[in-house]
Amino acid sequence: MPDLLIHDCDILRNEGDRAWVDLHQDIWVDGVRIKDIQPASSMPSPGNLRIVEAGGRLAIPGLMNTHAHVPMTLFRGLAEDVSVEAWFNDYIWPVESNLTPEDVYWGALLGMAEMIEAGVTCVADHYFAMDQVAQAAADAGMRALLAWAVFAHEGEAKLEQTCKFVQRWQGKADGRITAWLGPHAPYTTTPDFLRLCARRAQELGVGIHTHVSETAEQVRLSLEQYGVTPVRMLLDTGILERPAILAHCAYPSDADLEILHGKRAGVAHAPKTYLKLGSGIPDLRRYLNAGIPVGLATDGAASSNTLDILEQLRMMVLSQKNLAGDSTVMPVAKALGIAFQGSAQVLQMGSDLGEVTPGRLADITLIRQDGAHVFPRINPAANLIYSSRAADVDTVICNGQVLLENGQLLTIDKAQVKREVSRRLARLSQRVPGNRIAIYPA
Amino acid sequence: MPDLLIHDCDILRNEGDRAWVDLHQDIWVDGVRIKDIQPASSMPSPGNLRIVEAGGRLAIPGLMNTHAHVPMTLFRGLAEDVSVEAWFNDYIWPVESNLTPEDVYWGALLGMAEMIEAGVTCVADHYFAMDQVAQAAADAGMRALLAWAVFAHEGEAKLEQTCKFVQRWQGKADGRITAWLGPHAPYTTTPDFLRLCARRAQELGVGIHTHVSETAEQVRLSLEQYGVTPVRMLLDTGILERPAILAHCAYPSDADLEILHGKRAGVAHAPKTYLKLGSGIPDLRRYLNAGIPVGLATDGAASSNTLDILEQLRMMVLSQKNLAGDSTVMPVAKALGIAFQGSAQVLQMGSDLGEVTPGRLADITLIRQDGAHVFPRINPAANLIYSSRAADVDTVICNGQVLLENGQLLTIDKAQVKREVSRRLARLSQRVPGNRIAIYPA
Repeated sequence: MPDLLIHDCDILRNEGDRAWVDLHQDIWVDGVRIKDIQPASSMPSPGNLRIVEAGGRLAIPGLMNTHAHVPMTLFRGLAEDVSVEAWFNDYIWPVESNLTPEDVYWGALLGMAEMIEAGVTCVADHYFAMDQVAQAAADAGMRALLAWAVFAHEGEAKLEQTCKFVQRWQGKADGRITAWLGPHAPYTTTPDFLRLCARRAQELGVGIHTHVSETAEQVRLSLEQYGVTPVRMLLDTGILERPAILAHCAYPSDADLEILHGKRAGVAHAPKTYLKLGSGIPDLRRYLNAGIPVGLATDGAASSNTLDILEQLRMMVLSQKNLAGDSTVMPVAKALGIAFQGSAQVLQMGSDLGEVTPGRLADITLIRQDGAHVFPRINPAANLIYSSRAADVDTVICNGQVLLENGQLLTIDKAQVKREVSRRLARLSQRVPGNRIAIYPA
Repeated sequence: MPDLLIHDCDILRNEGDRAWVDLHQDIWVDGVRIKDIQPASSMPSPGNLRIVEAGGRLAIPGLMNTHAHVPMTLFRGLAEDVSVEAWFNDYIWPVESNLTPEDVYWGALLGMAEMIEAGVTCVADHYFAMDQVAQAAADAGMRALLAWAVFAHEGEAKLEQTCKFVQRWQGKADGRITAWLGPHAPYTTTPDFLRLCARRAQELGVGIHTHVSETAEQVRLSLEQYGVTPVRMLLDTGILERPAILAHCAYPSDADLEILHGKRAGVAHAPKTYLKLGSGIPDLRRYLNAGIPVGLATDGAASSNTLDILEQLRMMVLSQKNLAGDSTVMPVAKALGIAFQGSAQVLQMGSDLGEVTPGRLADITLIRQDGAHVFPRINPAANLIYSSRAADVDTVICNGQVLLENGQLLTIDKAQVKREVSRRLARLSQRVPGNRIAIYPA
């Protein structure tokens, strides 16, 4: 017998070049999966069912964030209008060096509150003190693919600790947590270290989440130092024999795209960060033509200021049309294909996520369609991409559990999170030598 | 005695390269203007005062939209992913040809509901059947600078009708309405027609709102047909002797910028439209270096899908950093200078709008700062630009009158507007030969 009924929603669908809405549908959820979808009220509902009254809201796959540093939500607004170098060296790394695991937990929970409110049900996170991020995901009810970032200078012992993290958390929280390895990037590791990561990932049977070719400069330095591109280094070191999330990968050569073709690797695309840092927007047609999955990502709130996938979807479409100088590029259905099926593929969950269909995991977001800003509803899919805001997210379901209802968080005490974060920032802002952060009172 | 007290807000301020917040302030409003600003609760309040409890919300100048076609909100989502030519010829102009004045009224009111909810207090609108738009602004309580669009092929008699509109509405609605002339663009008029517009504007003592140099192609065609750029044509025909809003002006030559320097002309910049149409983003440093005011605009919702100035502010900053390939370009304070003082200058109201200061008109927007997505408040100005959403707008005051309180519209019956728009779209979608518009039920 089903556990949950989402009553009377409009389901947004996309396939190839087509996007459409199935009006007035009931979604039946059994445990963690979608069991059935039928026209609204066409089946009798048993009495002891949990019913979510969708009232004509738009049902979309729970949004997926394929690359983030969720605990960095602590640093939103800390480093504005500075160079990438100053961003790291003068702001982010000094404060990160003072973070405690408990700080990471509360920062992660703040970011998850923001994501759930914005309809995001799954995040691929890449940070440190990842037991805390895993605990936050377990507590918040989100799905998470977690990788503990490791640099070569931290050594093999540190890598082994991240392997232990993988073993501790794999499949935990009712199967919501997946754990991978997370070598930071080719430019912060060495070929030997990457080879070791690839071998350990193979032994553990897990994938690898890493940054690669974020800027033109990184590619230039790699060619200078190693004679190969960063993507080629991932191939040469065995990383690409594993399932892989390639964060950013904004500067692949044509040869890089040939390397990636047919691999279990996808690209996490975070256009708001690229626009804000001025690091350049890649032409996504090159990836799609090469058959390489692309998904949406927010990166960390310290660089992109939000963990809002609807916003990244809009930025992705607008920046692609702008880059091409062509209004017909990246049409509505193709954009949804990246946000939904593409992101699911990047997470290596292409058959479980990305569509509201029987058999898939019950990760579903319901979006209000009654605002003046999304009226009239001539084109609900275009409204989602160009007009809807995260604040229109009304209800969020992950793994069959309701995390947000009528815009209210059910699993996170937001007031407590804000109190904890405020308290910790007061301490962090004192402890950065010569870099006291000004904090406005909460 | 003051009429209105906004109690305990944080006021966002910007001057040159600095942006900051004055915490816990009271704003006293006397009639249509700000009378005094003092630390919260430092002055006793008389009993019969209208009090808005700001509760620590961020007070900013009422947002200004320097170029729109508000009634086109009717067509949101009608024409997606098509070329500019198809957008006009296959979609917009066929439906516009069937619009009645009453359709224009309800479309305008829908757009004003969206704008007020998004914190916009003033709009420079450019459309037809402008008596209806003026009536909508009068009813909605917004400030409006209105120009009746006219094409050369409509003839002198039509221009005279738009002059009559100016005389009917100038200074009406407690001074909230300003009326100008609106020749559509150099490419849809003739030099003789523009000369006539300039002469009539001078006789009426009003300004001119026109489109100019929207695309590279328009500039090329002007040079081919007339041997001068569109901006030069505005100079040669006397238009630039009048106060002028130059909508878009995205492709000025260096000589054009020299022409505009020192004139009473400002540029209405609508980056979301330029990104979406792939028509190109201009480098705003060129205008600012030439001393030419730049303000924010939404254009019509048929092209940009929203009438959301906060969103345009974010798009403006991100697209400028992207264009320059430099994260330090268009820093926070400079962006606020365009959104606030720049927009006020473009509207020729630089001493009346754009700052929350005694003596200025009481156009004020209060924004919630308690969301997870704007926490922590390390940098409230950066939060406004990069993280806040229109949905965070809580209270809107225009000309001393409260239009929105606790997110609720006080002057517009949104349900009625939606009913009227739905009814009219059902008719409009039937009457476009061969172009029936699919409308999803409301």
